[in-house]
Amino acid sequence: MEPNIYIPLLLVAFSAVITLCYVFVLFHKVSRLKLADKRVEEIQTYIHDGAMTFLVREYKLIIPFVLGVGALLAVLGFIPALQGAEGIGWQAAICFVIGACFSACAGWIGMFIATKANARTALKAKEEGMSGALRTAFSGGAVLGLSVAGFGLLGLAAIYLVVYFITGDVNSPVQILTGYSLGCSLIALFARVGGGIYTNAADVGADLVGKLEAGIPEDDPRNPATIADNVGDNVGDIAGMGSDLTESYVGSIISCLTMALFTGLSFKHLLFPLLICGVGILASVISVLIVRARNWADPHKALNIATYIATGLVVVAAVALAILYLGEYKYMFCVITGLVAGIAIGFVAELYTSDEYKSVKSIAKESETGHGTNIIAGLGVGMRSTWLTIACLGAAIALAYFFGGSYGIALAAVGMLCTVGITVSVDGYGPIADNAGGIAEMAGLPHEVRQITDKLDAVGNTTAAIGKGFCIGSATLTSLAFIVSFIEAVKKFVPTFDISLSDPCVLIGVLVGAMLPYLFSAMVIGSVGRAANKMVEEVRAQFEKDPAILEGKSVPDYNRCIDISTKASLHEMIAPGLLAILTPIGTGLVLGAAGLGGMLIGGLVSAIMLAVFMANAGGAWDNAKKYIEGGHFGGKGSDTHKAAITGDTVGDPLKDTAGPAMDILIKLMSVISLILVPVLVELTPLWDIIVKFFAGL
Amino acid sequence: MEPNIYIPLLLVAFSAVITLCYVFVLFHKVSRLKLADKRVEEIQTYIHDGAMTFLVREYKLIIPFVLGVGALLAVLGFIPALQGAEGIGWQAAICFVIGACFSACAGWIGMFIATKANARTALKAKEEGMSGALRTAFSGGAVLGLSVAGFGLLGLAAIYLVVYFITGDVNSPVQILTGYSLGCSLIALFARVGGGIYTNAADVGADLVGKLEAGIPEDDPRNPATIADNVGDNVGDIAGMGSDLTESYVGSIISCLTMALFTGLSFKHLLFPLLICGVGILASVISVLIVRARNWADPHKALNIATYIATGLVVVAAVALAILYLGEYKYMFCVITGLVAGIAIGFVAELYTSDEYKSVKSIAKESETGHGTNIIAGLGVGMRSTWLTIACLGAAIALAYFFGGSYGIALAAVGMLCTVGITVSVDGYGPIADNAGGIAEMAGLPHEVRQITDKLDAVGNTTAAIGKGFCIGSATLTSLAFIVSFIEAVKKFVPTFDISLSDPCVLIGVLVGAMLPYLFSAMVIGSVGRAANKMVEEVRAQFEKDPAILEGKSVPDYNRCIDISTKASLHEMIAPGLLAILTPIGTGLVLGAAGLGGMLIGGLVSAIMLAVFMANAGGAWDNAKKYIEGGHFGGKGSDTHKAAITGDTVGDPLKDTAGPAMDILIKLMSVISLILVPVLVELTPLWDIIVKFFAGL
Repeated sequence: MEPNIYIPLLLVAFSAVITLCYVFVLFHKVSRLKLADKRVEEIQTYIHDGAMTFLVREYKLIIPFVLGVGALLAVLGFIPALQGAEGIGWQAAICFVIGACFSACAGWIGMFIATKANARTALKAKEEGMSGALRTAFSGGAVLGLSVAGFGLLGLAAIYLVVYFITGDVNSPVQILTGYSLGCSLIALFARVGGGIYTNAADVGADLVGKLEAGIPEDDPRNPATIADNVGDNVGDIAGMGSDLTESYVGSIISCLTMALFTGLSFKHLLFPLLICGVGILASVISVLIVRARNWADPHKALNIATYIATGLVVVAAVALAILYLGEYKYMFCVITGLVAGIAIGFVAELYTSDEYKSVKSIAKESETGHGTNIIAGLGVGMRSTWLTIACLGAAIALAYFFGGSYGIALAAVGMLCTVGITVSVDGYGPIADNAGGIAEMAGLPHEVRQITDKLDAVGNTTAAIGKGFCIGSATLTSLAFIVSFIEAVKKFVPTFDISLSDPCVLIGVLVGAMLPYLFSAMVIGSVGRAANKMVEEVRAQFEKDPAILEGKSVPDYNRCIDISTKASLHEMIAPGLLAILTPIGTGLVLGAAGLGGMLIGGLVSAIMLAVFMANAGGAWDNAKKYIEGGHFGGKGSDTHKAAITGDTVGDPLKDTAGPAMDILIKLMSVISLILVPVLVELTPLWDIIVKFFAGL
Repeated sequence: MEPNIYIPLLLVAFSAVITLCYVFVLFHKVSRLKLADKRVEEIQTYIHDGAMTFLVREYKLIIPFVLGVGALLAVLGFIPALQGAEGIGWQAAICFVIGACFSACAGWIGMFIATKANARTALKAKEEGMSGALRTAFSGGAVLGLSVAGFGLLGLAAIYLVVYFITGDVNSPVQILTGYSLGCSLIALFARVGGGIYTNAADVGADLVGKLEAGIPEDDPRNPATIADNVGDNVGDIAGMGSDLTESYVGSIISCLTMALFTGLSFKHLLFPLLICGVGILASVISVLIVRARNWADPHKALNIATYIATGLVVVAAVALAILYLGEYKYMFCVITGLVAGIAIGFVAELYTSDEYKSVKSIAKESETGHGTNIIAGLGVGMRSTWLTIACLGAAIALAYFFGGSYGIALAAVGMLCTVGITVSVDGYGPIADNAGGIAEMAGLPHEVRQITDKLDAVGNTTAAIGKGFCIGSATLTSLAFIVSFIEAVKKFVPTFDISLSDPCVLIGVLVGAMLPYLFSAMVIGSVGRAANKMVEEVRAQFEKDPAILEGKSVPDYNRCIDISTKASLHEMIAPGLLAILTPIGTGLVLGAAGLGGMLIGGLVSAIMLAVFMANAGGAWDNAKKYIEGGHFGGKGSDTHKAAITGDTVGDPLKDTAGPAMDILIKLMSVISLILVPVLVELTPLWDIIVKFFAGL
């Protein structure tokens, strides 16, 4: 009952509770805004109901997985040999379920309010102009961002407190918390994949038939898929991203705790990352308050100032905590390294995906010679972007290690993500502004409204690049920390354990691991294609059946399109989800711990590269299209523009579905492997049995 | 002066000499054929001269690299600490230059005859029909295939004999032969990249302006880039592939010798792979003789029978040699595993790239909804194809290891490539038939000629898939063997050496290695784009300047197009070449041996995945286009066809330039690393200096 332990933990829990209280206030502020326009209200209700229906059905489908895995963790805990192992036992199973619920909650609340904030942003833009619209959209995003951070941190601090209270041991909560991380990862994977397939299918369906075949503009109410398209933005970019970042945030902290545990550091090193996150979450709240307090004419400035303030506060706190609490100033450099590296990786992403730089311009230029050269140029840009990203990551790993060893590397990931509250607020505001524009279009609001929402949306796209940088960077560092923990965990049982390349199990494991992200991406991309085809057929059928739809005299059946996207995406998310869960288990049973370690390394390397490649290629194609639409190389409607649309279509499933899922895939596999360790060291892998058989020949 | 050593070596050398004699005979048989058609002769001369000019200029450009690296190897040998190390010293430098020359020779001779066989095939098709055309085209391919095997094996056996004669030590030739392998790799990299850029640039230039803008058919003499396009097939698919496979072949044998040396096996294990290759080369000659001896109506049957006979002979010989010479029957299973795995990987490639299976059909179907869906489907097929390929490779590694340990894995690679003589003959015959079709078109030969050459070309495409399987499979196993040798070589100096993931140098190395294939691919793809743009501008300019060209009244300036492709590709091949050479050196100096080992592993994994992905995606797009041209989904000229052409355009640089270069990239980096070992263990890496500096703070 050391006050040195209780007080910091209570402070962290308290900061999470304060944050969630503020979420509650914001939630009501946004919902209370009246919708003065009937048509806007009607459209908003369509989108809101469609999105919530999807999420409820998605969660219903995931429940059996959660209960199954939870039961398995609990049952395994009764095997004597496995007791006290990371993430196994009924305590871990409870944490697992809490993690799954909290991750789901963050997505749910964020999306609930986002699908209300969208219409309110449109009307505020009409009534109050830029500053009112910005405030409303940003408040919606902040509900998501602060929920992600608040739920993530509250669960961690609460579990830590309770387990410490019961056991009196400062280390045992860490072992149980692995279950919490697994719960977050499981939800994140399904939410990202399901939401991603939904949004891409609806988008492709709406664009291909609506824009290209029928020749009606985007967000036109005559397009039956247009509501589904707006729903998709919410289930993908709000709920999917929310669950995704909850797991990134929680994963980074828990990997840091695990690392501290395995390297035998003091309890202060366990609490240090939690304290940093406590400061980070409060800094995020302060930033949100500042953005809301003023009337901003320039949204870009507002968001940048918010991010800088939060970052600055964390830097100050990191210095103070490292010196005053930890007594070792060097660790503050690890946190700062993480923050700087996250921003640097985000800047690299901007360099390759913003139309202010030459890469995007070169794609636009190559579109002049046709679809093929547009695609080749985009693939080239995506591939090329890996080198600077890896340079930033490598430098971050080196610096973090110089200052803090393996623990320092994990601490850098915490540094990247401790301000997740504000980065996700900024990220989440984008789709709300996008949706607001769609609603303004469909409801026939004045042209100025669309101009304001377009400006908000454009700013959101730029700032989102930095968010992506934090995501990819932290995923790499977190997975590395988990893999190192995996090796250390095996060494606890088998001190001579080694992942050596002379071992063919390791070789095979590395190859299998490297292949998985490709197979996973292929499955997800195929799913998008199939779901999109169903949508295309439905839209075509509606146009054919009732020609009055295209004349604007008859209302299309929006719900059928929503239903198709919902069913298809839920159906399609199962197979890749199972692949991610079962492969580490299968590899471990066949190739043993060394083979599994090899698989994790191969998987990490391959997943990170594909994630960077797909995210940046997709972003570059998107902005090359927008650059042409801005009047370059022939502008809208030209052949160059058509070629650029092809690139955008190809890029969407890469950057919105397959790419972001890579991060989760590798973290989920690492955590499952870490939990599997005590099982693996007890069992003889199939490989050894076969080798014995051959030796007996 | 053990007869047990001399006799086998002399037999191997003798079989290589016999093969080269037969190459000489075939060479004259093909050149002696008279060209009875003036127009055909004129076109053939254009192509021949263009191709030879390119090769001479390419080799001239490479000479400084060869001399520079050779001098470096020789100079390093005078440092006392580095004496007796793998691939260092003036002896190794000589071997290096021999390797470079032999690899270049194989490409040169193959291409010299291929650019003569093309026109002769066209005329034979006119005079004698299918069987005559097949015999001529196949003889041209056989000159390439048997040169590759003959030069590769002769150099090996001769160096082995000479060094053994001088030193009397059976092990020392192996250390020097590493230089020979490096020489082959260096030429292969430049030849593949330079040739690949040439052929893609000419192809895109000819297609974009000729087919799409001017609306003239392929191989139309009015197109100024049409000769350059035909030259490109030769410098890319003949000279490039020839050098590439010489290095694969030599690399697999030398990695096997190195492995035998490091695992402390007997001299018989050193000679066993050489003997297998001796049998393989003779089996290839026999197969070629059989194809030439009969009049075949069905080219597919002819090529299959040739491959089966060679494979069967090698299997019998492997059994006999393992039992009678080696006295350990288990090693025959390693050779057979390699052969079967190569065929299996080739079959997987066919499964995903032949229009008889659903993958290609699905791409064709997705082309109905446009360019974007065509691309997405192709990317998906390429990514999905990795899993079965890796399954075959994993099974091969497992089986080879069960039977023969690490040496067994390297032996499997030798098994895959020992019949390289016949597989390259079959591969090389494709571009000759393709060229023959182009010449027939340009010279206005009867329609039946084109039908025959088209049929020959189609068969070549199918059989080439198996060749690619051998290439990718053997590259993986060879690189693995080199990396394991690298680790063992370091252990000779530093017995505690370990590539541990807790070491941040290894982490950074793995990430850098995984990034390299992406950066390399991006550079190559960018080069193709730039070179193609120059070609597009030139063709447009010629059409504009002289409208009589399109009317067929004026002859376009073919030479200007050839010159542009030549200059651009030679200029563009330097940067990626330097990247491949300098990165392992830089990584070693900064991160040390462990970091370099990590880089090799990351690079291997990433390169293999990209190679499989790019090869199969490209092949699938190509055949989806052909499938539509065969009258499906609207056939030629439909919108579906246009979308499929986009996929083909995108696939070309992936499958012909970047993809095949991956194999060479990773082998070249592995060999350079192996040679660097004694330098690395002597120097303190920059990393350690920095760590010391921080520790002193």
